[in-house]
Amino acid sequence: MKKISVGILGATGVVGQQYIKRLIDHPWFDITYLAASVQSAGKSYGQAVEGRWRLPEALPENIKNCYVHSINQVREASKLCTILFSAIDTQTAKIWEPQFAEAGLIVISNASAYRNDDAVPIIIPEINADHLKLVQRQKELKGWKGGLLVKPNCTVQSYLLPLHAIHQKAPIKRAIVTTMQAVSGAGYPGVASLDCLDNIVPYIAGEEDKCASEPLKIWGTLNADSIEPAKYPIFSVHCNRVPITDGHTSCVSFEFLDEKLDQDEIIELWKTFEGPPQSLQLPSAPKKPLIYRIENDRPQPRLDRDSENGMAVTMGRLRPCPVFDWRFVTLSHNTARGAAGGGVLNAELFIRSSQEEFQEATMNLALSR
Amino acid sequence: MKKISVGILGATGVVGQQYIKRLIDHPWFDITYLAASVQSAGKSYGQAVEGRWRLPEALPENIKNCYVHSINQVREASKLCTILFSAIDTQTAKIWEPQFAEAGLIVISNASAYRNDDAVPIIIPEINADHLKLVQRQKELKGWKGGLLVKPNCTVQSYLLPLHAIHQKAPIKRAIVTTMQAVSGAGYPGVASLDCLDNIVPYIAGEEDKCASEPLKIWGTLNADSIEPAKYPIFSVHCNRVPITDGHTSCVSFEFLDEKLDQDEIIELWKTFEGPPQSLQLPSAPKKPLIYRIENDRPQPRLDRDSENGMAVTMGRLRPCPVFDWRFVTLSHNTARGAAGGGVLNAELFIRSSQEEFQEATMNLALSR
Amino acid sequence: MKKISVGILGATGVVGQQYIKRLIDHPWFDITYLAASVQSAGKSYGQAVEGRWRLPEALPENIKNCYVHSINQVREASKLCTILFSAIDTQTAKIWEPQFAEAGLIVISNASAYRNDDAVPIIIPEINADHLKLVQRQKELKGWKGGLLVKPNCTVQSYLLPLHAIHQKAPIKRAIVTTMQAVSGAGYPGVASLDCLDNIVPYIAGEEDKCASEPLKIWGTLNADSIEPAKYPIFSVHCNRVPITDGHTSCVSFEFLDEKLDQDEIIELWKTFEGPPQSLQLPSAPKKPLIYRIENDRPQPRLDRDSENGMAVTMGRLRPCPVFDWRFVTLSHNTARGAAGGGVLNAELFIRSSQEEFQEATMNLALSR
Amino acid sequence: MKKISVGILGATGVVGQQYIKRLIDHPWFDITYLAASVQSAGKSYGQAVEGRWRLPEALPENIKNCYVHSINQVREASKLCTILFSAIDTQTAKIWEPQFAEAGLIVISNASAYRNDDAVPIIIPEINADHLKLVQRQKELKGWKGGLLVKPNCTVQSYLLPLHAIHQKAPIKRAIVTTMQAVSGAGYPGVASLDCLDNIVPYIAGEEDKCASEPLKIWGTLNADSIEPAKYPIFSVHCNRVPITDGHTSCVSFEFLDEKLDQDEIIELWKTFEGPPQSLQLPSAPKKPLIYRIENDRPQPRLDRDSENGMAVTMGRLRPCPVFDWRFVTLSHNTARGAAGGGVLNAELFIRSSQEEFQEATMNLALSR
Repeated sequence: MKKISVGILGATGVVGQQYIKRLIDHPWFDITYLAASVQSAGKSYGQAVEGRWRLPEALPENIKNCYVHSINQVREASKLCTILFSAIDTQTAKIWEPQFAEAGLIVISNASAYRNDDAVPIIIPEINADHLKLVQRQKELKGWKGGLLVKPNCTVQSYLLPLHAIHQKAPIKRAIVTTMQAVSGAGYPGVASLDCLDNIVPYIAGEEDKCASEPLKIWGTLNADSIEPAKYPIFSVHCNRVPITDGHTSCVSFEFLDEKLDQDEIIELWKTFEGPPQSLQLPSAPKKPLIYRIENDRPQPRLDRDSENGMAVTMGRLRPCPVFDWRFVTLSHNTARGAAGGGVLNAELFIRSSQEEFQEATMNLALSR
Repeated sequence: MKKISVGILGATGVVGQQYIKRLIDHPWFDITYLAASVQSAGKSYGQAVEGRWRLPEALPENIKNCYVHSINQVREASKLCTILFSAIDTQTAKIWEPQFAEAGLIVISNASAYRNDDAVPIIIPEINADHLKLVQRQKELKGWKGGLLVKPNCTVQSYLLPLHAIHQKAPIKRAIVTTMQAVSGAGYPGVASLDCLDNIVPYIAGEEDKCASEPLKIWGTLNADSIEPAKYPIFSVHCNRVPITDGHTSCVSFEFLDEKLDQDEIIELWKTFEGPPQSLQLPSAPKKPLIYRIENDRPQPRLDRDSENGMAVTMGRLRPCPVFDWRFVTLSHNTARGAAGGGVLNAELFIRSSQEEFQEATMNLALSR
Repeated sequence: MKKISVGILGATGVVGQQYIKRLIDHPWFDITYLAASVQSAGKSYGQAVEGRWRLPEALPENIKNCYVHSINQVREASKLCTILFSAIDTQTAKIWEPQFAEAGLIVISNASAYRNDDAVPIIIPEINADHLKLVQRQKELKGWKGGLLVKPNCTVQSYLLPLHAIHQKAPIKRAIVTTMQAVSGAGYPGVASLDCLDNIVPYIAGEEDKCASEPLKIWGTLNADSIEPAKYPIFSVHCNRVPITDGHTSCVSFEFLDEKLDQDEIIELWKTFEGPPQSLQLPSAPKKPLIYRIENDRPQPRLDRDSENGMAVTMGRLRPCPVFDWRFVTLSHNTARGAAGGGVLNAELFIRSSQEEFQEATMNLALSR
Repeated sequence: MKKISVGILGATGVVGQQYIKRLIDHPWFDITYLAASVQSAGKSYGQAVEGRWRLPEALPENIKNCYVHSINQVREASKLCTILFSAIDTQTAKIWEPQFAEAGLIVISNASAYRNDDAVPIIIPEINADHLKLVQRQKELKGWKGGLLVKPNCTVQSYLLPLHAIHQKAPIKRAIVTTMQAVSGAGYPGVASLDCLDNIVPYIAGEEDKCASEPLKIWGTLNADSIEPAKYPIFSVHCNRVPITDGHTSCVSFEFLDEKLDQDEIIELWKTFEGPPQSLQLPSAPKKPLIYRIENDRPQPRLDRDSENGMAVTMGRLRPCPVFDWRFVTLSHNTARGAAGGGVLNAELFIRSSQEEFQEATMNLALSR
């Protein structure tokens, strides 16, 4: 199979570097375009990240000499690649992502800039792969030759998949969630070490709203030109920054809408949970998207964040909630599943979305939500 | 005023050391008795804690040469002091605390051994100082010449005082709380550093049950021979151990039973909250037991745990909860207010409990709960 | 005594805040002037630091409403205060500090901008208080109405005082030092938490050179118009940034030039060490500038950094060095003695430098170096 | 090739678990025997480590049901395996290791119990593979049917390999080393988190002596019945425990004995360094045992400890030392190369030691030391 040309916007940042790591040996994709801000543009990638390459893995040799384009050379990008991973900040994304989509690229974004846009789906492949249809509609709605799809906030990933496995069987009415989020979620340099050592910051700007609203769009109903958000469950999410390098942990208490499931049923749903990435055998898909640990002190960030190459969500401690029905702890790797890994999985899903198997794999998704 | 002789059980441990720090210059108390386990008994205190004194403050000179008694010399203790602070573990407390109470000492305990005993009150001076009457009844109920009173779990302190200030005005129906607890709460050596560095352990044995039940006893009704626990609020508490040295943080969402208060009313209640320790001007009482910070990223353990010598609780971020009524963040110092500081405050309260002002200071407490 | 008016340049930063803490109740000084960068100028201090006040202590009420001047209003400053503490960065210091000195102020600086200037002394009061004479000469040499004196790099403080106590008795030939420096030494936001959590950065730009050269100027000989640096000891300093909030630790191996001292002699020199701040009883002077701990695992940052209000240096583990003569561990608080505390002590020293007692207190300093 | 049966003593501890991880898919070895202390003996391995499995990787399924033997069933072990990896503590090793060696097993130990034994070699395969001959002599010297070889202290690995690469070309006279050691070096539970969070402990019992003496034995001359330690270089090693999970960092200053090498020569020696594990292509051998990073802020534990599966040593910052000749920073993974990985590499080396290629690979080692 001929490889598909892909590019990375914001290639020199922490998430950009992780895209390189996940794409460098990818069976379907070939990195053919890198872009970054003015300071880096015009340099080789090796020069641009000198002293700023933050990954344990060495910078791949064949990437070192790649030319770093300026972000404003949109037409150039459209000649050099088909899919563009966007790892730029929200302000920059606001301006530039539509221009790349207009120029014919499929933009897969980590930024929050267009998560509220009616015509742009927020995709978690196991939950709402069918929302990808909206990307086709963007040609008409937006006048784009290409398209734009986004992934949710990295924190959402920690609790949404385990709740979804339950919700599609027995609807959930409401949930109160407290997150303990790793510093890598704030990028680099991000959180100051004086705020982080021996300390908790019980506030992350804008995060709690996103954590409550994005799930409802993901669980929403696809209409002709937009997604109508789900009404349930109602979320209250408390967000905290804690002294952890990687891995967002959430404590969740939830209440069913009508029918209640018992502990064994929920654990069974988690153990057997699968979605389109698994049935389509996407290269980045975790074999088990949900892992339930029976030990009473798991999940723990250091021990569980790298499960399935950082693409699985690990849960533990499902137990009765004295106030609601059940409560549990859940963890996902915020820069793997929650950022570059999730982006690559979305790209793989998009590639397969024109094929017949995709229809089959996603036909029941809408019903299950 | 002649000083009152006090002793410390478990004097060589971390909490025992903190008792020494808080008692060494105390205006009312004089340390006249120290006891510890067999390994330390018979030594001078200086020898017993050699290489194990964990406080920044130097070991006070006049304590260095104090004789460390064996815990089994109960009669000795009853000759040497009147009040005994117990900083021993639960198993040891189970065996020894009643013997000291029987021998005539007033035992003020940090252990959880007797928190469920019908005849033993759990005291937070600002909330249920009137429950001290039960200590008098122990003579008859238990056949003790002295008495036993206990402080609650250190985590409870972080959320109970701010909830109480609200609850006494407008009853609370239920609350979901997630705690992020410092490692010092587990004593020394306590948590292994491999469990703590770059990690969260989402489980503390027995803690969640205590966190849900102790508040109801503290808010309970004093009957002739026991305390009838309150029925409300219902608590669901998720407990986590996080990489913080000192200071327990809690995220709280709560719902009123009937009448609702608005944001300004709650903040006003917090700002003006006072209890018997303040009206009686107890030496260890914080001037302001509750401090509300208006910054959107407070409280933080490093910045707020030492407020009022570690005896105040600091809250922030009172905001609407999409699921319940309100939510907020709250922090208290687990080894100050939550351990030795709370113990000394209880002792001061007990000393005043035979005086007339005490009746006045506590007469409305029962009504307010 | 009428208080002396003092001001703070860079008053809103982390070190500026610590100056406020140390000056607010100072027996000699009265804060009458605050200046900061353009973003803060024109605001009240309370507004300027909103959300950025990083100290556990509450912002003093009487400072909240103080007007924050722009740094370029030099003449204003000279009307409002006599002594100016400079807590600004090196680049800004390079430009502005001479202008304030020219306008008549005594500038006491934390910045490294003028540490290499021949006419500007680097003062550690216990070592080279007599170098203050050079400040008088600046009138002629620089044409200033006021003057400028600086404190050394914060790391230098951890090893220079204990070495000085030895060196003045038996000259030291050379020393190899490895530092483990706290993140607060880099200011705020300073070190990124991703560089700091579970990590060491074995490099701090420019630090190793300063650590080797500044001691020689401090130990230098005061000539008419400049200080001739000492020739010995030769230093090799390895600097590391470690995940510690406050407190710089150094491991030191050193070799005598000629005469050797034994372990008891060195410890005795440390225990009895005093300098002009002690004999002049300066308000910020630690009673014991050097504290030797006999426990084999001390000093430790959390336990020892706050000794004597953060103004003492704590040493431990003096033992034979298989390669040189002796080796030991030493610790000082980088933002107390190493920054604002050291600055205030320098100001106190300067105030007393015109008095007779000062002559007496410093007369033997030059000989002892 | 038929796999060789191997066993693990202390199989349930942290190092024991890492042996399992490194042996489970090993091309030469097959785990056929596990032993642990009385508490675990008689259980299945899965039961024995329940709640204590500390690795991110899941416990391998085929190990779960393995029987855990009691350590005192020595004869049993000799029937079930040929090579025995010992991951027990020093006291236990003192008693049991000789018994297993006597019973015919080749014991490869991480403990320090026999590092000073004249007849027991300390092996770093790249440096002194030829010392393995001494194991053959143990039959006669000790009356053992099997043999015993040990690896050095985990810290030694961080600085010895880079110094050896230099020393074999131009002898080194002396070195002053300061280590910053990870908490995993102390095992589990090991260091208390209160000693580790926001803290440094500048002392590790016994460590500094081992760090100075073990290199001399490794560099020693093999005589008929013992190893005569080298006389040079003389080491002074300062050991510190720092808040790092994995990876020991060392700052090294060293002086040549006679001939001096320049910076380029040293870096070239490091880049081209190889030893028997590389020429024999042992399965666990790093391709590059020494990696030199040119960035000025490397090596860093989080970024470099996992190089070459944790088996390489990473150096950086080679620069002139004002006191000695050169100084640099070096890092190795203490539980990989420094523990289980190093043990497995030693076993691989031993297996090959009876073959002809081994003679060739090691013939020049003695000369080069």
